[in-house]
Amino acid sequence: MSKPEYVEIVEKVFDKTKQKKTEEFKYIGKSIIKWDAIDKITGKAWFTADLKKLFQNAVFVYSVRTKYAHAWIMKIDVTDAAKYPGVLKVITANDIPGINDVGYVIPDQPLLAYKKVRYIGDTVALIVAESMENAREAAELVSVEYEPLEVILDPLKIVEWGGLREKEHTLIHEERGSDVVSRYKIRTGDVKKAFEEAAVVVENEYRTPMQEHAYLEPEAALAIPQPDGGVTIYAKTQCPFDTRKAVAQVLGLPFNKVRVIVPPLGGGFGGAEDVGNEIAAKAALAALLTKRPAFLVHTREESIIGHSKRHPMIARYKHAATRDGRLLAVEAEIILDTGAYASLGPFVGWRAIVHSTGPYKVPNAKIDLAVVYTNKVYAGAFRGFGNPQVTFAVERQMDLLAEELGMDPVELRLKNILRNGDRTVHGQLLDHGVGLEEALLKAVEAINWYERRKLYSQQKGTIRRGIGIALMYHGNSIGAEGADFSSATIIIQRDGSIVFRTGLTDMGQGAIQGLVNIIAETLGVPPSYIRVEWPDTASTPDAGPTVASRSTVMGGNATLVAAYKLRQRLNKLAAELLGCDPDNIVINAPDVYCKNDPRLKITWQELVEQSFWKGVPLQEFGYFRAPPAEWDEETGQGAPYMHYTFGAIISDVEVDLETGVVRVREAVTAYDIGRVINRVGAEHHAVGGYIQGMGYALMEDLYYAPDGRVYNTNLSTYHIPTGLDIPEKIKSIWVEAGFRRGPYGAKGLGEPSIVAIAPSIANAVAHALGSKEANKDINRIPLTPDYVYSVIKKHGLLKK
Amino acid sequence: MSKPEYVEIVEKVFDKTKQKKTEEFKYIGKSIIKWDAIDKITGKAWFTADLKKLFQNAVFVYSVRTKYAHAWIMKIDVTDAAKYPGVLKVITANDIPGINDVGYVIPDQPLLAYKKVRYIGDTVALIVAESMENAREAAELVSVEYEPLEVILDPLKIVEWGGLREKEHTLIHEERGSDVVSRYKIRTGDVKKAFEEAAVVVENEYRTPMQEHAYLEPEAALAIPQPDGGVTIYAKTQCPFDTRKAVAQVLGLPFNKVRVIVPPLGGGFGGAEDVGNEIAAKAALAALLTKRPAFLVHTREESIIGHSKRHPMIARYKHAATRDGRLLAVEAEIILDTGAYASLGPFVGWRAIVHSTGPYKVPNAKIDLAVVYTNKVYAGAFRGFGNPQVTFAVERQMDLLAEELGMDPVELRLKNILRNGDRTVHGQLLDHGVGLEEALLKAVEAINWYERRKLYSQQKGTIRRGIGIALMYHGNSIGAEGADFSSATIIIQRDGSIVFRTGLTDMGQGAIQGLVNIIAETLGVPPSYIRVEWPDTASTPDAGPTVASRSTVMGGNATLVAAYKLRQRLNKLAAELLGCDPDNIVINAPDVYCKNDPRLKITWQELVEQSFWKGVPLQEFGYFRAPPAEWDEETGQGAPYMHYTFGAIISDVEVDLETGVVRVREAVTAYDIGRVINRVGAEHHAVGGYIQGMGYALMEDLYYAPDGRVYNTNLSTYHIPTGLDIPEKIKSIWVEAGFRRGPYGAKGLGEPSIVAIAPSIANAVAHALGSKEANKDINRIPLTPDYVYSVIKKHGLLKK
Repeated sequence: MSKPEYVEIVEKVFDKTKQKKTEEFKYIGKSIIKWDAIDKITGKAWFTADLKKLFQNAVFVYSVRTKYAHAWIMKIDVTDAAKYPGVLKVITANDIPGINDVGYVIPDQPLLAYKKVRYIGDTVALIVAESMENAREAAELVSVEYEPLEVILDPLKIVEWGGLREKEHTLIHEERGSDVVSRYKIRTGDVKKAFEEAAVVVENEYRTPMQEHAYLEPEAALAIPQPDGGVTIYAKTQCPFDTRKAVAQVLGLPFNKVRVIVPPLGGGFGGAEDVGNEIAAKAALAALLTKRPAFLVHTREESIIGHSKRHPMIARYKHAATRDGRLLAVEAEIILDTGAYASLGPFVGWRAIVHSTGPYKVPNAKIDLAVVYTNKVYAGAFRGFGNPQVTFAVERQMDLLAEELGMDPVELRLKNILRNGDRTVHGQLLDHGVGLEEALLKAVEAINWYERRKLYSQQKGTIRRGIGIALMYHGNSIGAEGADFSSATIIIQRDGSIVFRTGLTDMGQGAIQGLVNIIAETLGVPPSYIRVEWPDTASTPDAGPTVASRSTVMGGNATLVAAYKLRQRLNKLAAELLGCDPDNIVINAPDVYCKNDPRLKITWQELVEQSFWKGVPLQEFGYFRAPPAEWDEETGQGAPYMHYTFGAIISDVEVDLETGVVRVREAVTAYDIGRVINRVGAEHHAVGGYIQGMGYALMEDLYYAPDGRVYNTNLSTYHIPTGLDIPEKIKSIWVEAGFRRGPYGAKGLGEPSIVAIAPSIANAVAHALGSKEANKDINRIPLTPDYVYSVIKKHGLLKK
Repeated sequence: MSKPEYVEIVEKVFDKTKQKKTEEFKYIGKSIIKWDAIDKITGKAWFTADLKKLFQNAVFVYSVRTKYAHAWIMKIDVTDAAKYPGVLKVITANDIPGINDVGYVIPDQPLLAYKKVRYIGDTVALIVAESMENAREAAELVSVEYEPLEVILDPLKIVEWGGLREKEHTLIHEERGSDVVSRYKIRTGDVKKAFEEAAVVVENEYRTPMQEHAYLEPEAALAIPQPDGGVTIYAKTQCPFDTRKAVAQVLGLPFNKVRVIVPPLGGGFGGAEDVGNEIAAKAALAALLTKRPAFLVHTREESIIGHSKRHPMIARYKHAATRDGRLLAVEAEIILDTGAYASLGPFVGWRAIVHSTGPYKVPNAKIDLAVVYTNKVYAGAFRGFGNPQVTFAVERQMDLLAEELGMDPVELRLKNILRNGDRTVHGQLLDHGVGLEEALLKAVEAINWYERRKLYSQQKGTIRRGIGIALMYHGNSIGAEGADFSSATIIIQRDGSIVFRTGLTDMGQGAIQGLVNIIAETLGVPPSYIRVEWPDTASTPDAGPTVASRSTVMGGNATLVAAYKLRQRLNKLAAELLGCDPDNIVINAPDVYCKNDPRLKITWQELVEQSFWKGVPLQEFGYFRAPPAEWDEETGQGAPYMHYTFGAIISDVEVDLETGVVRVREAVTAYDIGRVINRVGAEHHAVGGYIQGMGYALMEDLYYAPDGRVYNTNLSTYHIPTGLDIPEKIKSIWVEAGFRRGPYGAKGLGEPSIVAIAPSIANAVAHALGSKEANKDINRIPLTPDYVYSVIKKHGLLKK
């Protein structure tokens, strides 16, 4: 089959520029400040909730949530609430014109609960009122009769070790007949034999917490009913096209009658996927039923209770190696707790299994993974998407193994890492640039690993330093999860200014500025010529979801294709006008000239104007589709992702043996992202990912009462790192190993930047403790002071 | 040079379908109700002013207009107005950040007058206040010192007959050094000799009035300042891209920071071109200076005083013919009065000269035309754009000539009309379908011309019937006026529903539904699958202006190109999936199957879903550019338009000799529009155009006091036809002669439908009067009762 034109363009650009150094580019790899950074910092930018200032005659929507985490609904009586002053409508499941479901992957999640509630955030009714105060007050008057059921919070009540078989229990999803959402496995080589032949085996159990995205902006949506019966929704959502689909389903409308527009997001991290659909559908329902604009804005408490979290994991890992440190086999059982609803759980589970042995050559593996329901807040997408969980386990195992072998952790890793031409545990040939070794060596050198490692091993006193390393790899984009495509729209205006549109969202992650850089470099115009419009399902083609570190590669390729085609047309026209060869045209707007004779010139504005007279269209849709991913469910073999980002993280920590308090003092991150597109954006990612990963490692978890209520529902009790927690120095190192099917060779960084942070810190903590016995107990995160102190106490580490 | 792909597509579709009868199409030529017709009829649709219900915190903008029609401005004092309660800002010329000019073709029109006022609608200041009432009241407190100048209302004070030389007079545009805006001429053959050799010469002077568009919806704009310093404007404008350009110039912003969105228009007729720019710029200015949304909504009085009108014409025509009725020569001098500002006057003048001898073979011609300033309301675009004026003169001349020759007017016309292969007066070869003869013959037959003509010639009594004919041709699109391109965007959504976007506006003219039909026919989906989004300069490429009967051809071609490319891709994919040849794929959504084996099938929705999996993008920009027009300014020779629409109109009237009242009893219109795209739309155009033309013929004119004030500033004094004035029967006949570069062969009808109405009625009135002497006096419109009665009285026609 012939290669699609869009693939050819991407490869052609890569081949032409792969030898270029950063300084040879005009915009690629430079530090370019985000187009709206200043507006955001000065408070000028509009987020969804700010639109309240703009639209009038709005109604407000409040979600009445269940008081039980698991119960049958016997009766919902809204009579009193409906009569409350200012209340226009109380909406229950019966009022939904379409399908009452917002399940992301499987249809297991009613928008409005009607038969059963499954977690403390389930909504049983919506109050639509003239003010949010009216709505909240009226909510107290909704009377629901429940028949409570056993509340299950521990996934080990659902499945058991030794095969992850489902146990007898009160079914949470009785309609599905099972509380195991999905199972995955990897079967490669002969694990039994490998373990028999192994010189060394290490084995441990690991636990990771339910992390909250804790983005700056709680969820918000505004729905405006349209004259033709459609609805336009402004919403905090990462994935406008998915949100549209969900809303269309709830309302029973065709896609083109549901228009989703996305103002800038104050943070996403995966959290604004499923809940974006939910709030948009709730607001749209209220708007259509009251024929007025409808606002829904969550408080922080509603946000924490009502939106998905990172899946907690419990896993048992067993690694086998030769005496000289060659990995022979990995065997593991992994349980992911998806809470009350599957949400993206099935995909998270799949990504977890794909990455479940880390970036190492593993000839023999037997891994089983189950995603199970509990009565917790549902878990969904969160930066890393299953990978931080398994990487924590894998990288801790590697350190246990190194200790067991008496090897330096870096040396052990160097023996086993994936390099160009190797095959992953699922049999995928790594035929693109694999810069893991380079990243590892550069990180080691930058922090002076060997010296510090040695130095810290000889400590005394109650304040102990430790240094730890962790490696990671991360498949970019959605791979075998779905149809993996993206789109972008570039329209050059008649005065030479440019409108850029993509259906990918800007949640502060900076990827969209990267796309602007790609246009600027490809067309030869300054980034200031380009205006980024808000994503809008009625103005841009489906760009796929803004998830999975796919924006730079998938969105970037689509953008590159559009810009490249426009550039070709402009080169041709300029060549005609100036009388030289199209390949000889230099565009450095506002100057356009012939390379071999710069006196032959025209301005960018003149060139654009001429194209209007000469019949050269200056608008282009760019499109890119990744090659279909392959995956064999029975063996876990295939090519699940088009390519991988690699990274090596080293953390240098300080542990106070008297309090159990851990402080990160210094860190270095080294990522192979193929090619840096926007340096400042990449650096902010590396640093931001580090800090979020540090919160994951040291302080973040959602705590539940036995009845399923959440204890820490706001940021005074759910702690994330503050300015005072951040290490003085986080050094970013970039490896640019190139990727032929990425724009200018680039790969993604959004998710990778959190994946290996926690194990690098945990490994450093273990190093600081300096005790082989204690080492095995650093097997859970967050490493809160009370937990670390309990380990110190247990092993008597405080006595000198 | 090779043909562009877009031309090839249009021609290929024409060649493939030219033999098809209407019944063989699924949507082309059928009567399909406009997508939003019901919403509009039931009051649900939103026009710009309706957005007041949606946006809050808005300020209101009121234009303080001059009290003199021609005066120097000595001083503008806004101190008191600025202090008035509720007033936020009084804006004068000094506050404009960019260029204070909204001239459409030449920069002669300040947005805010600062040195001089030139007509009674000139704005000297803008009041921005919390309410429109505040603003209006404060306007009274703006104090302007004027030094009045002579008010010139008669264009014959600017130029004189016998060469149209400019006379001595008080200059209105002193900065230009002349009050002649532009001049045009045609020089072909040897006119002097032709007149010497002629058997018959007829000569007369003609006058046509200043017509008001009188659309349902007065002008309105809403401007919303954006966080980044840009502005989004919802406005009543026909030409969002021109409006954006004008606003960008006034504000000193790049195009991509000015976003113009166009809600449906309650009528346009050319009137919403220049004034659209003006109101949008005023609202945008107020929004940016107060940082609040700003509304500007005209009352009917402000609309009539403040927006452009149809150019009044005074012309002298001389026709020469042979004894057997062959036209030998035309000589004419034409004066178009553009009022205070050029607006589109230069283009109107050019179109008038192009059509100045009607759809006839004229071997010798000498025509001179001047567009001149006066102190009237400025004249600009109005359906027909100069052609109704000259066609009135030409078609009256033809009837005078027929009388002089003793020939039937139809016979005389048949002798001289343009046919396939003929050349126009400007030397253009008519190599596309010319259906004029067919139209003429069909109209004559439908109304039984010869019988009625004879019957009415023998009348007695005070109520007299008369029947008159007039022919027309009309160059479609903007031709040599500018870069003539258009664009369209089709995005097939993942559920199979479709988003359609064009920068062409829906002003009630129905053209956009025609584009929907083209998509439906080309893709094979019902029109109900397609949602039309509002034009939006930030979401669609420049589609050119919505003027000049160009939407169906230019917009239609762009739409066809997009739909055709998508269809090709869908055919290919369907063929792959079903296992037959792409040319063999039938799409009749929701069914898609192989023609030779309908058992091989898939649904439309499945096919669309598959394209997302197979890497087939379902979005397409369509683009079309007309071949460059040619025009020699010195001789008036060239190929000014890509193609022409032709028509024959017959009106049957009744004249009350005792009152001078004329009533149209019956009419037939026959137009060659190449191919009917939407039958009901075409019929509404023919009928609507007839009625507006009837108003032009019988009742409409703007009346001025000597000081330049307008007497009739609302619809109780400016009369347009009411339901009671409309003839019982207006029959529409369609000739489909085909046009290879039109979508499915179609040509435009928007403007043509008014061009020949007035002369057909005037010719019928002359026929009813039955007097050779009176005939020459039917040389002006409107034929108001008082004027007709004055003719009756002058020639003693009432005495039996």
